Amino acid sequence: MENNKDVLESGFLELLENKNLRKLREKLIELNEADIAEFIDTLDSEKSLIAFRLLPKGLATDVFACLDNDKQEHIVKSMTDSELSFIIEDLYVDDAVDMLEELPSDLVNKVLANATPNTRKLINEMLKYPDNSAGSIMTVEYIGLKKSMTVGEAFDYVRKNSFDKENVYTGYVMDEKRILEGVVTVKELLMNPTDAMLDDIMSTNIIKAVTTDNRETIVELFNKYDLLSLPVVDLENRLVGIVTVDDAVSIMEEEVTEDFEKMAAMTPSEKPYLKTNVFVLAKNRITWLLVLMFSSMITGGILSRYEAQIAVLPLLVTFIPMLTDTGGNAGSQSSTMIIRGMAIGEIDLGDALKIIWKEFRVSIVVGSILAVVNFIKVLMQYPGKYNVGITVGLSMFCTVMMANIVGGLLPMLAKKLNIDPTIMASPLISTLVDAMSLMIFFGLAVEILHI
Amino acid sequence: MENNKDVLESGFLELLENKNLRKLREKLIELNEADIAEFIDTLDSEKSLIAFRLLPKGLATDVFACLDNDKQEHIVKSMTDSELSFIIEDLYVDDAVDMLEELPSDLVNKVLANATPNTRKLINEMLKYPDNSAGSIMTVEYIGLKKSMTVGEAFDYVRKNSFDKENVYTGYVMDEKRILEGVVTVKELLMNPTDAMLDDIMSTNIIKAVTTDNRETIVELFNKYDLLSLPVVDLENRLVGIVTVDDAVSIMEEEVTEDFEKMAAMTPSEKPYLKTNVFVLAKNRITWLLVLMFSSMITGGILSRYEAQIAVLPLLVTFIPMLTDTGGNAGSQSSTMIIRGMAIGEIDLGDALKIIWKEFRVSIVVGSILAVVNFIKVLMQYPGKYNVGITVGLSMFCTVMMANIVGGLLPMLAKKLNIDPTIMASPLISTLVDAMSLMIFFGLAVEILHI
Repeated sequence: MENNKDVLESGFLELLENKNLRKLREKLIELNEADIAEFIDTLDSEKSLIAFRLLPKGLATDVFACLDNDKQEHIVKSMTDSELSFIIEDLYVDDAVDMLEELPSDLVNKVLANATPNTRKLINEMLKYPDNSAGSIMTVEYIGLKKSMTVGEAFDYVRKNSFDKENVYTGYVMDEKRILEGVVTVKELLMNPTDAMLDDIMSTNIIKAVTTDNRETIVELFNKYDLLSLPVVDLENRLVGIVTVDDAVSIMEEEVTEDFEKMAAMTPSEKPYLKTNVFVLAKNRITWLLVLMFSSMITGGILSRYEAQIAVLPLLVTFIPMLTDTGGNAGSQSSTMIIRGMAIGEIDLGDALKIIWKEFRVSIVVGSILAVVNFIKVLMQYPGKYNVGITVGLSMFCTVMMANIVGGLLPMLAKKLNIDPTIMASPLISTLVDAMSLMIFFGLAVEILHI
Repeated sequence: MENNKDVLESGFLELLENKNLRKLREKLIELNEADIAEFIDTLDSEKSLIAFRLLPKGLATDVFACLDNDKQEHIVKSMTDSELSFIIEDLYVDDAVDMLEELPSDLVNKVLANATPNTRKLINEMLKYPDNSAGSIMTVEYIGLKKSMTVGEAFDYVRKNSFDKENVYTGYVMDEKRILEGVVTVKELLMNPTDAMLDDIMSTNIIKAVTTDNRETIVELFNKYDLLSLPVVDLENRLVGIVTVDDAVSIMEEEVTEDFEKMAAMTPSEKPYLKTNVFVLAKNRITWLLVLMFSSMITGGILSRYEAQIAVLPLLVTFIPMLTDTGGNAGSQSSTMIIRGMAIGEIDLGDALKIIWKEFRVSIVVGSILAVVNFIKVLMQYPGKYNVGITVGLSMFCTVMMANIVGGLLPMLAKKLNIDPTIMASPLISTLVDAMSLMIFFGLAVEILHI
């Protein structure tokens, strides 16, 4: 499929370059808006404007919402006031807000100046909600109904008002103060006679979010209840907007990307990798690299305490990378499972004892195997040196045990202290485990090898 | 919200223990099926059966679909044939298939024996599709329409048939051979007069999957096109089922968990952490630990080549943890960004040169800062030892450069060779970078310090 599309797009480019614009327009409008946007995103600034202007007005808005932020910026810059005015009125308010949050302030003013007072008011209200709160994610276009309506009246209302609503399949029933009283789906409307009252068929057990809820909460609600849309109410339980499932999916993806970045010791970036400036990338990475570098200097300090032992038996040094690496890997295995388990709600703080017990048993199995393999390997390399084999094997066993338990518990400790558990991912765990595994190794070496 | 619910559930448990079952039933049926299932999942086997049997038949099926696999198994074991027969007919076929895939084979036979021939046939067909293919994920219950129908007729059909369809908001228009010809949403039906022909209003630019497509493809299509449901066709373009957005969201979450596990050098597990047996956990972890342990023995081998230098200047050893750790961290920072970028389709193989150029520049910024910090730190610790400072600083710079470029390129190389790029995550990158950073460090030490 990928390939098929690439061929299509190269054909489009040819039409554009040959100025065969009528043909290009015919071909473009057959496509889905996401595909058209993908095509325009690949064009240079001049060509992208030509292609964008080919689109019929309504479709142009849908395509505009799918474009990259920098293409949107470029197009807004080049548009006349009347073109801009059409687009801004035609966009769903949440998409308009998303765009405005990325635009430089002079362009924000240009856009707002071309919006009707009503749209401007809606946009301004949404811009006030804190970043990543339900209020900032929601759209304000939804189907609002009254419980005194019949099914037939509700259908008439949906029919008349649905052309500019993002989700038309769930109606929200409110009283005259906009207090949310019930929810009725189009499926339920279809299953009931036209003269049934909404009051009798609506569901009053409403899954909802408050404007101040964070996006993690929203993602959890969508995951748990398989929703198509989620109503958002203010602190007085008045309906102010809805979050649609497609926005919830995008948020889910952003959340996961952030978790991956944090778990690799980076400050999460706002833009995709290829669009992020070199200095921003460097800034996102350097803090943690410095913190971890200073931590691993402590490990170096531990090594310097054993310089005498190393001088006596330099071959000890050759086991260090294997011990510290394996400890780091074991620790990141257990910490990753716990961090992810907590992120998707499978593990909570009450499970700490279960986790220690589980990691303890896993460590016995895994640690024993690794210890035996090491013992054999040492004896093959240095025949007769049983004590060295025992030292290395035993260090391995203790390191794995310590790493698994530290890796399992630290993310929970972080959560308990209200610190983001992703901070306890591989890089930090590895650094901590490094120091401890060296102490185990040299401690045992001093005891067993009498050096 | 969490707390509120916990309180509720503890109240439920009290009602159950006091055998106040009528009251419990009243309270339970007010809840969402996902919440009821969550409550039953916390109960022991006897209590969970009592609670489950309290539920009205239709609700019981919905709750059953949300239960943990082991609770489902327990309930299936204890059900009479007629109870089982009701549940299996009432379940959406894809949910029934999900359950069957986890049940031991004697219970699978018990379930299939209680299904009607038609349901049994549907289930058996779906069980034949390979794991994680579109065919195995789809549901076979969808709204099938004909293009000769009018909007009014389509509504009548939806009204009559929607009670047992998972997604009733998209109708699929097929010819008499079930070839998929078009798609029409309930929104479009609502926006058109009742005598309009589907042929005239349906959209023929259909986003669809083939039964053999893998689940990554499905997730990509949902992400890109903001779908509520995705039609699945066979190789002859005949419609065989649909994937609904809630299933797509679950798949997305499973995919991400798998990626996290693979990136922490584990074989992905089938069940949640707390439900996975100790030996399965150990088995999932040991393979990669062994592979990486043997790789880091190579690093140890490199160290043993420099035993002479270490004997002359033992303090060199104390810089090793810091250099290898920082190299590993830098490498996992860049590899994580590239792996994630490829997973969500932001980066593809054609971007390799851009990535090298970007990582090269990021390395200059980050590497310089770390090098200078190290130079100063060495001079503070060992005043006058400029050459050692230069050796450590320069090694740090070269290590960061090498680590970022290796971390950026290896995931792309893996993809090019059709290997899963997640394999190139922190653990393997760290091990590779370890060996290279030691060669850089001792190579530079020999040159600069003349040892």
